Amino acid sequence: MAFDFSMSPAVEQQRRRVEEFVAAEVVPLEQKVFTEGMTDALRVELQAKAKAAGVFAPQAPKEFGGGGFRFDESAVLLEEAGYSLLGPLALNCAAPDEGNIHLLHVTGSAMQKEKYLEPLVAGEVRSCFSMTEPPPGAGSDPSALRTRARRTDGGWLINGDKWLITGADGAAFSIVMALNEGDDVPQGATMFLVDADNPGFVVGEHLNTIDATGVGGHCRVSLRDCFVPDDHVLGEVGKGFQSAQVRLAPARLTHCMRWLGAARRAHDIAVERAVGRELFGSTLSDLGMAQALIAENEIDLDAARSMIWHASWAIAEGQRSSEQSSRTKVFASEAACRVVDRSVQLAGGMGTSEELVLGRIYRDIRSFRIYDGATEVHKMSIAKRAARRAAERTADREARA
Amino acid sequence: MAFDFSMSPAVEQQRRRVEEFVAAEVVPLEQKVFTEGMTDALRVELQAKAKAAGVFAPQAPKEFGGGGFRFDESAVLLEEAGYSLLGPLALNCAAPDEGNIHLLHVTGSAMQKEKYLEPLVAGEVRSCFSMTEPPPGAGSDPSALRTRARRTDGGWLINGDKWLITGADGAAFSIVMALNEGDDVPQGATMFLVDADNPGFVVGEHLNTIDATGVGGHCRVSLRDCFVPDDHVLGEVGKGFQSAQVRLAPARLTHCMRWLGAARRAHDIAVERAVGRELFGSTLSDLGMAQALIAENEIDLDAARSMIWHASWAIAEGQRSSEQSSRTKVFASEAACRVVDRSVQLAGGMGTSEELVLGRIYRDIRSFRIYDGATEVHKMSIAKRAARRAAERTADREARA
Amino acid sequence: MAFDFSMSPAVEQQRRRVEEFVAAEVVPLEQKVFTEGMTDALRVELQAKAKAAGVFAPQAPKEFGGGGFRFDESAVLLEEAGYSLLGPLALNCAAPDEGNIHLLHVTGSAMQKEKYLEPLVAGEVRSCFSMTEPPPGAGSDPSALRTRARRTDGGWLINGDKWLITGADGAAFSIVMALNEGDDVPQGATMFLVDADNPGFVVGEHLNTIDATGVGGHCRVSLRDCFVPDDHVLGEVGKGFQSAQVRLAPARLTHCMRWLGAARRAHDIAVERAVGRELFGSTLSDLGMAQALIAENEIDLDAARSMIWHASWAIAEGQRSSEQSSRTKVFASEAACRVVDRSVQLAGGMGTSEELVLGRIYRDIRSFRIYDGATEVHKMSIAKRAARRAAERTADREARA
Amino acid sequence: MAFDFSMSPAVEQQRRRVEEFVAAEVVPLEQKVFTEGMTDALRVELQAKAKAAGVFAPQAPKEFGGGGFRFDESAVLLEEAGYSLLGPLALNCAAPDEGNIHLLHVTGSAMQKEKYLEPLVAGEVRSCFSMTEPPPGAGSDPSALRTRARRTDGGWLINGDKWLITGADGAAFSIVMALNEGDDVPQGATMFLVDADNPGFVVGEHLNTIDATGVGGHCRVSLRDCFVPDDHVLGEVGKGFQSAQVRLAPARLTHCMRWLGAARRAHDIAVERAVGRELFGSTLSDLGMAQALIAENEIDLDAARSMIWHASWAIAEGQRSSEQSSRTKVFASEAACRVVDRSVQLAGGMGTSEELVLGRIYRDIRSFRIYDGATEVHKMSIAKRAARRAAERTADREARA
Repeated sequence: MAFDFSMSPAVEQQRRRVEEFVAAEVVPLEQKVFTEGMTDALRVELQAKAKAAGVFAPQAPKEFGGGGFRFDESAVLLEEAGYSLLGPLALNCAAPDEGNIHLLHVTGSAMQKEKYLEPLVAGEVRSCFSMTEPPPGAGSDPSALRTRARRTDGGWLINGDKWLITGADGAAFSIVMALNEGDDVPQGATMFLVDADNPGFVVGEHLNTIDATGVGGHCRVSLRDCFVPDDHVLGEVGKGFQSAQVRLAPARLTHCMRWLGAARRAHDIAVERAVGRELFGSTLSDLGMAQALIAENEIDLDAARSMIWHASWAIAEGQRSSEQSSRTKVFASEAACRVVDRSVQLAGGMGTSEELVLGRIYRDIRSFRIYDGATEVHKMSIAKRAARRAAERTADREARA
Repeated sequence: MAFDFSMSPAVEQQRRRVEEFVAAEVVPLEQKVFTEGMTDALRVELQAKAKAAGVFAPQAPKEFGGGGFRFDESAVLLEEAGYSLLGPLALNCAAPDEGNIHLLHVTGSAMQKEKYLEPLVAGEVRSCFSMTEPPPGAGSDPSALRTRARRTDGGWLINGDKWLITGADGAAFSIVMALNEGDDVPQGATMFLVDADNPGFVVGEHLNTIDATGVGGHCRVSLRDCFVPDDHVLGEVGKGFQSAQVRLAPARLTHCMRWLGAARRAHDIAVERAVGRELFGSTLSDLGMAQALIAENEIDLDAARSMIWHASWAIAEGQRSSEQSSRTKVFASEAACRVVDRSVQLAGGMGTSEELVLGRIYRDIRSFRIYDGATEVHKMSIAKRAARRAAERTADREARA
Repeated sequence: MAFDFSMSPAVEQQRRRVEEFVAAEVVPLEQKVFTEGMTDALRVELQAKAKAAGVFAPQAPKEFGGGGFRFDESAVLLEEAGYSLLGPLALNCAAPDEGNIHLLHVTGSAMQKEKYLEPLVAGEVRSCFSMTEPPPGAGSDPSALRTRARRTDGGWLINGDKWLITGADGAAFSIVMALNEGDDVPQGATMFLVDADNPGFVVGEHLNTIDATGVGGHCRVSLRDCFVPDDHVLGEVGKGFQSAQVRLAPARLTHCMRWLGAARRAHDIAVERAVGRELFGSTLSDLGMAQALIAENEIDLDAARSMIWHASWAIAEGQRSSEQSSRTKVFASEAACRVVDRSVQLAGGMGTSEELVLGRIYRDIRSFRIYDGATEVHKMSIAKRAARRAAERTADREARA
Repeated sequence: MAFDFSMSPAVEQQRRRVEEFVAAEVVPLEQKVFTEGMTDALRVELQAKAKAAGVFAPQAPKEFGGGGFRFDESAVLLEEAGYSLLGPLALNCAAPDEGNIHLLHVTGSAMQKEKYLEPLVAGEVRSCFSMTEPPPGAGSDPSALRTRARRTDGGWLINGDKWLITGADGAAFSIVMALNEGDDVPQGATMFLVDADNPGFVVGEHLNTIDATGVGGHCRVSLRDCFVPDDHVLGEVGKGFQSAQVRLAPARLTHCMRWLGAARRAHDIAVERAVGRELFGSTLSDLGMAQALIAENEIDLDAARSMIWHASWAIAEGQRSSEQSSRTKVFASEAACRVVDRSVQLAGGMGTSEELVLGRIYRDIRSFRIYDGATEVHKMSIAKRAARRAAERTADREARA
């Protein structure tokens, strides 16, 4: 057999469980959350239900209470969770916690796993990832990092400003990225585990952004002589960028999985509405203009899913997959946004409303094309590697000639 | 001389006045409105300043207090007003009042002009246009109108439901579209002027939509045995669809003018930010990926403007221009949305924030591709006319042969 | 394991063989064929070399002399063959013979397999598939079939006109699709095996089309009282459309495989040229505008390949896959054309030339978006099925409520 | 009056003359030329007819025998000429002669006008413009010019290689661009008038390109110690790039005008066919999928025409318009190619054929997105200027603050 795209019965059964849980427990809460906002109390309630339904934290390691599914199996489950904007939070597979769980699992010490990973997998606490900085600091170009960590007695003093830190407000701790400062320490960046009650770690205002559904906002965070003891260094001193790579490719792909589910939801809503809508003496879904929108959505969803499965399989097999996950992230984010946009268009005036959910998905999905590497940044890196390969081919040919 | 694209000195001078007014008086209020919402008090204050600056209601007839500019001259001025999302309201050239002013001016009786048009041009009151209905009523297909007007003594009784009625909350009156009912009345639809304090006219909930900046919401409106006296019929009984045509093509184009300004604003913000942003050892605006976004914006803005000027000139010359305004509306709405989307992308994480205004323009502009004829509906009508012309050419050729 | 995208060592080894054969034996002949045209003598020579290299007819059944690879394995091998425009012919996996081989294998009688399939797999003869008719006959809408088959003693008399019949000139036989005529025969269409020397089967002029590389042209074919004996009916009488389905989905996908290879070739040529080209003080491949073209190609190739693998696996597993192959055909054909177009653009003036091969690929690939179901026709069918599913979901929900 | 898009009666009358001439005299010759190729004899015959019809050389100066129309008037007439691929040649307003006429008129000496311009306007001879060089010479980046001109007694000796020189085979003379060499001459490039019978000027092979209809091919040209006397310098020594600017912006726009006509022709053919074609129980032009293609064509044609008129007016008014003509060239070339592509698609299998003309237009138009500045090169220059303006706005604001 050349390939195998079949889903094992166990994964298919779990997928159905997630599907049913989302339909029965999550979707009914959407309008309440859209008008009143998401709270931590509601999150806890939803997560308790997800645990009871046996669908909690499918991607997290089994030893820490997660479902222990392979990364390519998770592709199927996280798409299903993403079918509601609240689903990933309910299943504790939402950003940024899901990525932090992966990072802590791979790079954390025993103490760190006990103190941070366990309660995080269990949903007892939330976390954030403090990387992005206001200009001229680290945005699309991580090497522009300005936050500094200086050696001090028994630990480090961190100073700097972060912003657009998703979920910071209410997080129990943050993973903080800073550049080492001083001659006596290894060059490079380091990751630190910083408790939210650290007096040197201050969460500031929420930025007023296009999206609206997450918990804990997109916040400014300031670090002022923030002391972090040595055993709260995550991974190795000076290897912060390498550790970030551990988080990066999988986190990109879990975004793709979840947003694929949201895009499918938008499409389903729009098509269900179109089959019940009379227009110009026809059913809306029978008009060629509408058929074009519907078919293009179907194709985009299929293409994105095929790429996500392919790239997730590579990750699950232990391949580095940085280039493949870049291609997948660009395609899936652009495709998912196209699908949502067409769905809004297909639903007409009502499509712009949050009553029909479409308006909210439209708002929430926009930044997916920017975070975890904007489309254009990935394209630069994809092109550079393609050029390198082309140069190698040319050199090979010339060597043989 | 074949064509003339030059702007007369008077129009250019007025354009500069609008530009300066928007920069000095309107832009500084944006963040306050974005966080606290637009109020009628603020609208009145802004409009008083616009009057003082000599830039108020440029498109409205002079005899009623407007600027009296030709429609193609207004293209230049309304683009400038649209440079801030609050500009059109400040200049009283925003939808739906601007379209209602035009409709009242063309079709209103002397009494109606005195009672409704004068205070509307002066900004003493706001109005709304009650046309769109919830499914299965009149949306993209106006012929599906379900609201009914029945003859009664000295007037009409209107019954029906509307929704997505922009600006209804707080409007002093509404133009209401209803289908005549009964054998004793002309077939067809009729337009009525309905006072907001009419007990049969009830404004309901605001729909929770993607956009956020207007006054008066997008509301449900219910008409329950709403009595309207005969002299409040706007235009002729049974000619409601014809009257709607009076409003339609120009209103489409003024949307294009205003949103062209907003798109240019988004582009300017993004490019100004890009020239001051260092990334990957270069200025952001020097990176080819960014240059592509910038250049595509410049081209879209130029193309949209050229079409808007062309179509506005045709309207100013008294041409019916229905097909040309359709083509222009499709192109300008799609192009303006592309420009705003690229500007958000160019500005990166910050582009999704309302602090930088881009996030808000992104939200507000989305429905432009749907209202006043969704892109797909215009395309159907454009294609039908093109097919008719092709059939005529074929018939001509065969007749000659 | 959830999925498996790994290639078996045997397939990977065979892929390399094809790669080496194409590079060593096929590519060097391209310019000669582009200027002088493809001949049957050259085809025979190339196919002999392919046999010697052990790469001949990978997709054809082993018992008839083919490689016997599974359909999803063939995806990998036919992509490699398509790397040269002459590759599929050299490997005898080009249209229309490849599709006819599959059809004969599935539906042919023992006699038909001996007389037609064996020499066809061996490359001793070529064939064609006579389905498409000039307007108002069967084009995108096969049900418009006008060619008629009437019962006669011991067989059928076929009358009708076909056009755009690829490879007809020089084919040893044709599979001809005709509608049954008369009350005494089953309703529906029937497929017939017609020898080229049948006096009732006349191949007419070659149409002058955009593409240029095939053998045997795109021809008009006329059938005039063309007698076909009963044992030359292919499949069942009256089941011609069902038989066509046997050919359809796989044939669509083999087109995708081959053209994916051609698109990859175009991309490789353009990028290799870009890494060696200085422009504006930089290497062309380092300019952001060029990087965008390169990265978009990489993404399109990856997405198309992921879909093709997915759909080919479904076919190999015996799934009907009609909808999936439709989605894949639309995406892969549009994507491959985009890749070739960008490659031409990247190579500049030289990209329009056949010296660099790009100009010829650009010409040859255009009709891929039209044949085997134009993009728009597939979209209609995709949308209809999506609408049907949405209606079923709604009905289910209502049934449960 | 703000704008004026009306066409003067004289221009409208001339437009009709061109329309009728193309329909009556040019279109009937198309199939002959498509199969047998264009010859100089046929060109002369067509041009004689155009003279007789009073439509010859509309854009050329009156004093030299042209129509003397303003540049924006010519926009209307050249679009009409472009309605047939043979029209511009018939009217002697095709590239490269049309651009050379303009350049000679603006920069030529009295002798040069008599010897070169007069017979060129009259169609007695053809010419070419030798600028583009094979890599690593001048392509998209003119500053990479490698051809050298060295002072010699009474003139210059030119050495270098050119390629893709359109119309070189059979041209009576060429304008040749070369870089000055030596210390005793002004730095920079110079333009030379070189007779085709100059022994140092050798026209080589025709490149085998996607397009097919022009006269004189796209040739390699080699200059080997090619002596050109001083009075054959066109414009000033060392000011060759400035002179090229004279030709550049107008030549870009005349390409846009002609190709707009060709795109309109493709659209007309496709829509005329669609109104007469039954498919799936409907007329093709009534299917929504077809309507989308038709409407998008109508919109692209309108947008391109509006931009072309706008930019041509600016040129006619003596504005430099380099940026505006760049925007217009990018949009018009991309739009025209989209229109032709959609027309091919709409016409289905027959759309790929030259019988229906569409296949030939598809081939001929492709390089328009590359020559006279590839899309990407123009975008770079457009973005740079936009960035410069943004930087100036920022500086202004800071200066005022």
